[in-house]
Amino acid sequence: MKPISASIITIGDELLIGQTIDTNSAFIGQELNRAGIWLKRRVAVGDLRDEILQALEAESRENDILIITGGLGPTADDITKPALRDYFAAGVRVDEDALQNVHDIFSRFGRKPSEVNLKQAEVPDNCTVLPNRRGTAPGMWFEKDGVVYVSLPGVPHEMKGLITDSVLPRLKERFTLPGISHRTALTAGKGESDLAAHIADFEAALPSWIKLAYLPSYGLVRLRLTARGDDATAVETELDRQFNELKHQVREWLVADEDISLPEALHRVLKARGRTVGTAESCTGGYLARLLTEPAGASAIFLGGVVAYANDIKEHVLGVPAETLRAHGAVSEETVRAMVAGALQVLGTDYALATSGIMGPTGGTPEKPVGTIWVAVGNRERTDTLLLNYRFDRARNMELTANAALNFLRRFILNDL
Amino acid sequence: MKPISASIITIGDELLIGQTIDTNSAFIGQELNRAGIWLKRRVAVGDLRDEILQALEAESRENDILIITGGLGPTADDITKPALRDYFAAGVRVDEDALQNVHDIFSRFGRKPSEVNLKQAEVPDNCTVLPNRRGTAPGMWFEKDGVVYVSLPGVPHEMKGLITDSVLPRLKERFTLPGISHRTALTAGKGESDLAAHIADFEAALPSWIKLAYLPSYGLVRLRLTARGDDATAVETELDRQFNELKHQVREWLVADEDISLPEALHRVLKARGRTVGTAESCTGGYLARLLTEPAGASAIFLGGVVAYANDIKEHVLGVPAETLRAHGAVSEETVRAMVAGALQVLGTDYALATSGIMGPTGGTPEKPVGTIWVAVGNRERTDTLLLNYRFDRARNMELTANAALNFLRRFILNDL
Repeated sequence: MKPISASIITIGDELLIGQTIDTNSAFIGQELNRAGIWLKRRVAVGDLRDEILQALEAESRENDILIITGGLGPTADDITKPALRDYFAAGVRVDEDALQNVHDIFSRFGRKPSEVNLKQAEVPDNCTVLPNRRGTAPGMWFEKDGVVYVSLPGVPHEMKGLITDSVLPRLKERFTLPGISHRTALTAGKGESDLAAHIADFEAALPSWIKLAYLPSYGLVRLRLTARGDDATAVETELDRQFNELKHQVREWLVADEDISLPEALHRVLKARGRTVGTAESCTGGYLARLLTEPAGASAIFLGGVVAYANDIKEHVLGVPAETLRAHGAVSEETVRAMVAGALQVLGTDYALATSGIMGPTGGTPEKPVGTIWVAVGNRERTDTLLLNYRFDRARNMELTANAALNFLRRFILNDL
Repeated sequence: MKPISASIITIGDELLIGQTIDTNSAFIGQELNRAGIWLKRRVAVGDLRDEILQALEAESRENDILIITGGLGPTADDITKPALRDYFAAGVRVDEDALQNVHDIFSRFGRKPSEVNLKQAEVPDNCTVLPNRRGTAPGMWFEKDGVVYVSLPGVPHEMKGLITDSVLPRLKERFTLPGISHRTALTAGKGESDLAAHIADFEAALPSWIKLAYLPSYGLVRLRLTARGDDATAVETELDRQFNELKHQVREWLVADEDISLPEALHRVLKARGRTVGTAESCTGGYLARLLTEPAGASAIFLGGVVAYANDIKEHVLGVPAETLRAHGAVSEETVRAMVAGALQVLGTDYALATSGIMGPTGGTPEKPVGTIWVAVGNRERTDTLLLNYRFDRARNMELTANAALNFLRRFILNDL
């Protein structure tokens, strides 16, 4: 069976000149993939009529589905709707439901929509409107010569709502979709090429219809097996078998056998044990706390933290002895040990995680260059420390440190029987 | 003069199935734009030879420059290099400089490269190697029929280093680039359509060669004027004039008249006054501290913070009276006021910023639904509070709250003469 293929066309100068990072495409790609639709290409074009028309023509020649996002705002630089009207040689109509929606949204805030806002309800007369309760720009569904075109607003939460509530159910009804299945393992602490060398034989022995991909991200590597096939039971059975073998081979670095984040994996470990954690951060400046509170329900395992950026706060809030700071410096094993001890006491948690280092670009010395970072994790009985040495820019040092520290905490908890 | 146009081709299944968000394209788009190169399109394809060849053919027909990223890793799913060899009908050679670089990088970590790692030095024999000191995959520069092709690794910091150090200088030498100029204003607290209505007359009166774009992001809107023209002096003069008028019209919501972030704008305000700030966060869970420590040199203005996720920590670390928590609840004006008072005392900063709210998806009540968030900011003399009501998902509530809180702090400082 020929796979159903799709292309995403994102519209907006802001994507091309780099003032906006395109997070929508990743979400849409994930959802299409999960539904068994092959995302073949992704194209971004600017707010230019001819560019939009050309992309619509080119992508519709090779795909069954086109998902178009962006350029539906009420401002003059948003030209997706007129371009779609030209493309389909369509007239314009006011959609009563969309118009009511604009009024509803404004009345929720006790305001009256302007003329510009009301224009959001004008749509090409050949489209089916997909209601958007989260914003004023409706989604639009077109069909032409067997190809489905879906136009969605670029605002992420509006686009997401429309994809989940309207687009996917309609696509599943409209097309017969094949079986596609994934298994993802999250690993930490081993680089992409080392992992590849370690599992080279496994990879070489995979059947042709199962593909292995490496997805590295700041000290983490996701390993993803993807299988396609018509016999769903056989696919799942063989995929499970191969995935078990993969997990076994990377067991030393395995964080999770699902596609979850490192903070989510930590939550599960802590929740299963009914334990809590707190943070004492210097160089990570609140990022560990931010990551630990990202999953919903974080309050069950995270009680709080101290961001001790200045030495005064290390001393007076966390109780790091002035003598320790004087003798060893803020970036030292002794200081992060004292930060853990202080955090356990001040925060009253079962575990505490501490960081102190030099993220750059300034602040390095010959003995402690930029990228020198001490991490400590402990409970009432024991504290372990870890010295990191990165040589990257501030943003990358921060991401690497955060993942290394969270993984260090995870391993400490797992060993704390 | 016909503008020099470019296309970015990103390669990798991980981009299509949505396991990686493409941040590289935004960076490359920014840099090309600044250099006067028009980024016409951006295309993402999977790790499939035919898809890569087709994209190279299609994009080279319409552009002067193709920037290709990704698919250069040492693992088997990285197939950009063989695809490029096929495309150019090129042979293979080992680049001695790239080979030495692989050895150098491994010896820095006291390790020996594997055979797979050494293969990184094999390149198509028609390319000029662009040295990559940050990783083992070299950049590659090709020319064919007047079109420049640049292949770069997908690892962001390696790609960035190559763009800055090698690609841009070479492109500027190779092409005669026209004048393109931007002015960007950052606003906060006014929505995109309201801003558009407010400056509709200004926008309509702009000369045809100056374009206005709205770039909204979680309660912030960037307004960008872009001008193209051959007479650089005339372009700059008129652009400055129009930008001054724009700034005047949006002065009430203006945060910065440069393309900087809200935390950077806050840093400038605090640094100019020689003042410091601290945070007392409940629902934002460390995100305010994380944002305040994002700019380099953060220690000059940010001393630290307390993440008081649990009520015990609000009470025992920040000194929020148990009676306040009992009578009004953690999500209340009284509690955030007490958190500010406690933070000023515990952290010893000039200003303190506090948050307490319900980010969702659970934890809401009929009186305090998900998205109810109290913010307070104060100094020794005065504390102001702000009640936010969002109705979005956890991630979006978090982003909106963080920007609203930081802007509330900024306005407080500006009014604190």
